[in-house]
Amino acid sequence: MTAAVGQRILALNAFDASRPKGDLPAATQALLQRRQKAFGPTSVLFYERPLHLVSSDGVWLQEADGTRYLDVYNNVPSVGHCNPRVVRAISEQAAKLNIHTRYLYDVVHDYADRLLATFPAGLDKVAFTCTGSESNDMALRIAAIATGKCGFVVTESAYHGNTWAVTEISPSSRPGQPLAPHVRSVRAPIGDGDVAARLEEDLKAAIASLEADGHGFAAFIADTIFSSDGVAADPAGFLAPAAAAARAAGGLFIADEVQPGFGRTGHRMWGFERHGVTPDVVTMGKPMANGIPLGGVVSRLDLMREFAESAGYFNTFGGNPVASAAGLAVLAEIEERGLISNAADVGGHILCGLRELAGRHEAIGDVRGAGLYLGVEFVADGAPAPQVASRVINGLRDRHILIGAAGRHGNVLKIRPPLIFERQHADLLIEALDAVLTAQ
Amino acid sequence: MTAAVGQRILALNAFDASRPKGDLPAATQALLQRRQKAFGPTSVLFYERPLHLVSSDGVWLQEADGTRYLDVYNNVPSVGHCNPRVVRAISEQAAKLNIHTRYLYDVVHDYADRLLATFPAGLDKVAFTCTGSESNDMALRIAAIATGKCGFVVTESAYHGNTWAVTEISPSSRPGQPLAPHVRSVRAPIGDGDVAARLEEDLKAAIASLEADGHGFAAFIADTIFSSDGVAADPAGFLAPAAAAARAAGGLFIADEVQPGFGRTGHRMWGFERHGVTPDVVTMGKPMANGIPLGGVVSRLDLMREFAESAGYFNTFGGNPVASAAGLAVLAEIEERGLISNAADVGGHILCGLRELAGRHEAIGDVRGAGLYLGVEFVADGAPAPQVASRVINGLRDRHILIGAAGRHGNVLKIRPPLIFERQHADLLIEALDAVLTAQ
Repeated sequence: MTAAVGQRILALNAFDASRPKGDLPAATQALLQRRQKAFGPTSVLFYERPLHLVSSDGVWLQEADGTRYLDVYNNVPSVGHCNPRVVRAISEQAAKLNIHTRYLYDVVHDYADRLLATFPAGLDKVAFTCTGSESNDMALRIAAIATGKCGFVVTESAYHGNTWAVTEISPSSRPGQPLAPHVRSVRAPIGDGDVAARLEEDLKAAIASLEADGHGFAAFIADTIFSSDGVAADPAGFLAPAAAAARAAGGLFIADEVQPGFGRTGHRMWGFERHGVTPDVVTMGKPMANGIPLGGVVSRLDLMREFAESAGYFNTFGGNPVASAAGLAVLAEIEERGLISNAADVGGHILCGLRELAGRHEAIGDVRGAGLYLGVEFVADGAPAPQVASRVINGLRDRHILIGAAGRHGNVLKIRPPLIFERQHADLLIEALDAVLTAQ
Repeated sequence: MTAAVGQRILALNAFDASRPKGDLPAATQALLQRRQKAFGPTSVLFYERPLHLVSSDGVWLQEADGTRYLDVYNNVPSVGHCNPRVVRAISEQAAKLNIHTRYLYDVVHDYADRLLATFPAGLDKVAFTCTGSESNDMALRIAAIATGKCGFVVTESAYHGNTWAVTEISPSSRPGQPLAPHVRSVRAPIGDGDVAARLEEDLKAAIASLEADGHGFAAFIADTIFSSDGVAADPAGFLAPAAAAARAAGGLFIADEVQPGFGRTGHRMWGFERHGVTPDVVTMGKPMANGIPLGGVVSRLDLMREFAESAGYFNTFGGNPVASAAGLAVLAEIEERGLISNAADVGGHILCGLRELAGRHEAIGDVRGAGLYLGVEFVADGAPAPQVASRVINGLRDRHILIGAAGRHGNVLKIRPPLIFERQHADLLIEALDAVLTAQ
């Protein structure tokens, strides 16, 4: 969820401290007060009546009173909340050794080797960080150092993380503000017509503008499922001409796999693989260790060497034994439980259900996505309808299903449950969505 | 350990992949090859014969062959390697709930309240991150937003983290490069004379220079134990005039407590308390959760509000239940086991031992520090002697003691063991240091 989408949803849908919450349980009321006191203005909280969670299991989150919610929102616990294999890996490793990588130990290399084996030839060097934000921050610097330029191109509602440098290239975190001088945006690859050609043309124009203004062109960075832009997956391959244009202009193509990576798109491990491109730099985060902070950057030897020679970089917690053990357990779960094909199967099942709903509910303008990253676009009178998205999010919450929205207008329902989501869970979602759309 | 100090030590003391390592165990050799293949140029590895660790306990790290090393280097596992209370907290919480803070749950507020209770009045808002780097990155933006300026002042060998923005204000990560245009440095508050007055004067001159060049002055940021500058603690209070000068010039004073914080200086919880100053922003990281990635920023309501209103910020893993549970266990250990007074007692014991050694070994030019953050400066013919530091580090490793160096010249032995370090461990250190200095 991007910060700006968060702000949109907060504006429509979120907790508002100024309104009385007389109907909340006393324990939740008390917690809300502590929240306001300790977090204050930096608090970001979902729902007018916030959830007070006490436990979780698989695809379910549970409140203090025993109410269970089907989780269609959270893509971090991708192998399931409290996945037993991950919990065991964390517990055993924490009791044995947890230190930085300036000493040798096995588990980080067991993990690094297994992770790198999922990448195309040439992308064979990894640096571990703690978050997707740190990964994207490093990727920007790799590009700036390799090219000697500082201009970046992103999509119009991109979100790539929360560091200063990454916030500057994340339009969705800067609502109402102009782009930073060294940043250009291209339209999201969504809509009618040849999105591949449009993306390529937009990118070329953006590069020309950066060069004309003296910034030069360092990289085009894209989330390969375009989450915060409102989800864009098809036609597979549409990213290839833009990636080629970035290279032709002397820049890099950075694939932000923080959201699409680790099998979510139901094809292979990485979102860029659906597009038949090999990025120069790949960044990872969120689901990498199922909730233990772990991120990573994978790139080529030449780019990593230039980066390492230019600035001292060390990440104290990056790839530490506990994070590596959790990451290894996640990869094992994805492989042994066939979660990529599960994402394809259950995602396809959801898509079918959504298309059936779209035939009956005029509010659904489009349905798209890949694997278990799907978007449902709501419209009213041909225009984006964030108010419908808001009503659906709240209506689903009343039916004990958690979900969010995305997109430039905040009108795209974002479906990205844990990858262990089953057809039976998909049916619960579709039924509830049907009921909410019928009731509204 | 800073990146640049790392590079210095690597130059003197570190693993060199090009030299044959015929005497290393086969398993370590194999791991080294995997390391070079997967990490390549971004690998940072200590010692010519790197340690191959398999387990740890308290103040001890253990290699595959059973060799145990006394840990005088690692300040992250401050309540001890594999601290049972922390391990239990992590394991239990990971099995129960691990999610982001956009839902309510108890443990993050149990932690936030207990953490904030250690701060002076007014510093009552916290935002959680995953690393000290993310914390300092946020602090810089808080200052830039509050002041509308972008100029920062740091000490000459400062290290504040690894994001792009933070690397730009970390001279020690940019060896051989000029300061970034919006950055000025002041001399480390080490040496003869009135360091307080010198620091204040240097800061005023730096601010004037930033203003003259049109950057304006946003903040003075200092690690309150000046770790990477070579450790500076006395006279307590020397930071106060500089902090006041920063405010008088319309900027902020940011206390980087990533290294000195959580009781290490043996006085109270925070390094700034030794100086009798209340910072505008305080940043935390490293020991906060004993190795689980957790960082934080504590500041005032007005500054947090301006930051929150300016840019969307959310940190996916920041303050998650597992990190909060670990952080809570760390605070409980510090309080219940009296680790702050232990740091004062054992640190004082080490200082006595070091001063006695200084009377017998000409190589020791100065001994300084507070609590369990101490520095031993080596000199030869009145000049900084990093080669002595290197020999001592390697000599201590041969005697199964792990330690590092810091400072502009890399000639300051850096003593910062886990806070559970006891007098018996201190005696092992002093005896071994005596032997190494005698033998060289």
